[in-house]
Amino acid sequence: MFSRVTTDDLLRLRDIVGPANVLTPDDDIEPYSHDETEDFVFPPEAVVKPRSAAEVAAVLRLADARLVPVTPQGARTSLSGGALPVFGGIALSLERMNRILEIDAENLFAVVEPAVITQVLQEEVEKVGLFYPPDPASRGSCTIGGNVAHGSGGPRALKYGVTKDWVYGLDAALPSGEILRTGGKLLKNVTGYNLTQLLVGSEGTLGVVTRATLKLIPKPLLAKTLLAPFPDPVSAARAVTRIFRARIVPCACEYMERAAVQAAERRKGEKFPCSDAEALLLIEVDGNREEQLDAEIETIAECCVACGAPDVYPATDPGRREFLWTMRRSIGEAVKALSAYREEDTVVPRVRLPELVASIREIAARHGIRAIGYGHIGDGNIHVNLLKGELPDDEWERRLDPAVRELFERTLALGGQITGEHGVGFVQKKYLPLAYPPHHIELLRTLKRAFDPNGILNPGKVFPD
Amino acid sequence: MFSRVTTDDLLRLRDIVGPANVLTPDDDIEPYSHDETEDFVFPPEAVVKPRSAAEVAAVLRLADARLVPVTPQGARTSLSGGALPVFGGIALSLERMNRILEIDAENLFAVVEPAVITQVLQEEVEKVGLFYPPDPASRGSCTIGGNVAHGSGGPRALKYGVTKDWVYGLDAALPSGEILRTGGKLLKNVTGYNLTQLLVGSEGTLGVVTRATLKLIPKPLLAKTLLAPFPDPVSAARAVTRIFRARIVPCACEYMERAAVQAAERRKGEKFPCSDAEALLLIEVDGNREEQLDAEIETIAECCVACGAPDVYPATDPGRREFLWTMRRSIGEAVKALSAYREEDTVVPRVRLPELVASIREIAARHGIRAIGYGHIGDGNIHVNLLKGELPDDEWERRLDPAVRELFERTLALGGQITGEHGVGFVQKKYLPLAYPPHHIELLRTLKRAFDPNGILNPGKVFPD
Repeated sequence: MFSRVTTDDLLRLRDIVGPANVLTPDDDIEPYSHDETEDFVFPPEAVVKPRSAAEVAAVLRLADARLVPVTPQGARTSLSGGALPVFGGIALSLERMNRILEIDAENLFAVVEPAVITQVLQEEVEKVGLFYPPDPASRGSCTIGGNVAHGSGGPRALKYGVTKDWVYGLDAALPSGEILRTGGKLLKNVTGYNLTQLLVGSEGTLGVVTRATLKLIPKPLLAKTLLAPFPDPVSAARAVTRIFRARIVPCACEYMERAAVQAAERRKGEKFPCSDAEALLLIEVDGNREEQLDAEIETIAECCVACGAPDVYPATDPGRREFLWTMRRSIGEAVKALSAYREEDTVVPRVRLPELVASIREIAARHGIRAIGYGHIGDGNIHVNLLKGELPDDEWERRLDPAVRELFERTLALGGQITGEHGVGFVQKKYLPLAYPPHHIELLRTLKRAFDPNGILNPGKVFPD
Repeated sequence: MFSRVTTDDLLRLRDIVGPANVLTPDDDIEPYSHDETEDFVFPPEAVVKPRSAAEVAAVLRLADARLVPVTPQGARTSLSGGALPVFGGIALSLERMNRILEIDAENLFAVVEPAVITQVLQEEVEKVGLFYPPDPASRGSCTIGGNVAHGSGGPRALKYGVTKDWVYGLDAALPSGEILRTGGKLLKNVTGYNLTQLLVGSEGTLGVVTRATLKLIPKPLLAKTLLAPFPDPVSAARAVTRIFRARIVPCACEYMERAAVQAAERRKGEKFPCSDAEALLLIEVDGNREEQLDAEIETIAECCVACGAPDVYPATDPGRREFLWTMRRSIGEAVKALSAYREEDTVVPRVRLPELVASIREIAARHGIRAIGYGHIGDGNIHVNLLKGELPDDEWERRLDPAVRELFERTLALGGQITGEHGVGFVQKKYLPLAYPPHHIELLRTLKRAFDPNGILNPGKVFPD
């Protein structure tokens, strides 16, 4: 179906982006062969590093004419295999397009190239008192382009929404070689269909984002954080509901199981507070007035204690706060270091979360697989790591798929979906038919063809084989 | 191209929705022949009133097989001709699907049928302390389905976003007779492309919304309002920028020209405050703490005075606040009652607003057309009413199109778009090629065909002839 990259293709690619910006298997292309998803490795036939939208468009036009697959790559931190060149072809690394083009403090928008690191943008806008809230756990290394492609979330999604809620305009190169320009620095715009939001979360299968216009807000001056241990996950989930009923919308409400925290302790070689509790909540509020945040933290503490927390631990200074967040952010990596694993990204309506947590435990136990859960309990989004542990390879293979299938069926029965923020990508695509009926998936395929008739853009992702 | 509705079609439509729910030109179908756009009248051949998604789907399947055009209608308050049956055919009135199906105070979502009146939903959720922010000026009569179709905004968009930001799931009937189900009560969901947001703002050209899942938040307990007169529009626009720089995000920041306010005074037979000022700002803040709002109002007042407001007028009680909002909400109708008109819905990046306001005046004057502006200055969205006044019909016709075209070209040059919240619909479709290059419009057409291959859904809208 696809063509291989030929010597002639390489010459033409070098013409487009310059000789130094085309790598072949003779160079060190190992980093471009994988992302952060399990141990998958798919070497590309060529790595191409454009510097401009025009170069991206020219590469796509060439690849489209030649039927060479193109896998867009940012920082390759995808957890769903989104950046894996599963058919070889061209790994289109946007790494050189990493400029913040504008921080418009008057209109409260930033305009950036796709390879800007999320945290770099955040630190830059904070220098002028502004705030870009989306905060994937990998924000220190992931890129805005990847965040846009995956519709990434993060802890602050609870109060501030996910990446999609901050993207107001995109430039995207299409396989035709055209540049699609959507939206702009406009808080309102209903001129034609919302292609901006069709591109967000499309996982690089519709176009390659070459520029993003992102909304900013004034940075809240203060944040306060509290850690609360619970005797069991269901009590923790109930505390969350109670906090919302008290009219408080925290900017983050994170859930960590004991096994997750203890894995992080071992990984970091540090002792974390309350790490012997069955379940922990890490809750943060932000705002501009000390008294208000103090009052909110007090109410949150009352809610936690009323739901079974023996005590609560406010983080009274920035160092302590950062320490708690380091603990939370290190969990993903720590859990995955325990063994071979499969990470799922279940999401349900918030109040169904106790049921999901119980189901995860029950299903994993029944299939004889160890499961560790953690994540964004405030928005119903729990990451489930299924661990191979000491299971023999064939046994792991035999058990994994039925367990995942059952987990997803249960998630869907609770009104949830199979991925909240990681994307369908390579590893979840076989489960898409659980989520949607055939006519829905066929419609998605038709939309894909409208943008990418030859199917060269990130093939082998999203759609079941 | 399209078929006429036959006697046989009417029999089959009556089978689907019941005999009482199919009207023909022998009945009073006048209300279904127009919306709130100028004086356009396009009588449908039949009015069909389904009661369920299954009935909507059956009507669409029939119409698709017979190539009969279908114009979905909510409360027909569209300002862009979105609800006009311009090709006759079936007016599909959703008016009987007007139930609030669920107010889920735990998950903070509402699930509604499309013909629920926006204000009715707001009042119902407020009874349990919750808040659905989007507030089109017509919220007392417009429907959620229409709001979704048009991606409607309103004053509170400034702080809370527009309808799209509150829609988390949709059921939509397609011409194939399938029901597409997207999203749900999920704060995060990246399972497949974002069809929810492709449907929002698609103006009934892709599918007919039969159910919407809308996010809610706790209702802010307090709001405070302030009216500020300015010697000129540019000073008013500068005050807005200054307020944002002071880290205050008002929940509304509305702009009214003198002519607009005076038209409202005449229409309502009431005297409004400061109605002799060249430009007025109506600013509102909301929140839960009296001291905080008082401090914000004080800062806003300082910003206004610093930018040339001779004085400011806080609304200290709810009655007074409601009076000011009545004044603001009555402007649209009052201005349009002055004469035949064309209303445009320009939107630019906020700080370009002084330029847009000046351009409106200059362009209108040069074309010898009276223009009155008002609207949502906080988000750069100004409604421009071009008035026929005493111009002879042929002169009005001759002047209007070049003036509109120039206004849009200027808006686009300022980084804006041709419609912020009213939609492209029937009256703006000829100007879409100003907004987008041919390949962009062709892509939109391809997406349209993916949903509606025979083009029966709301034909004659969005796309240029």
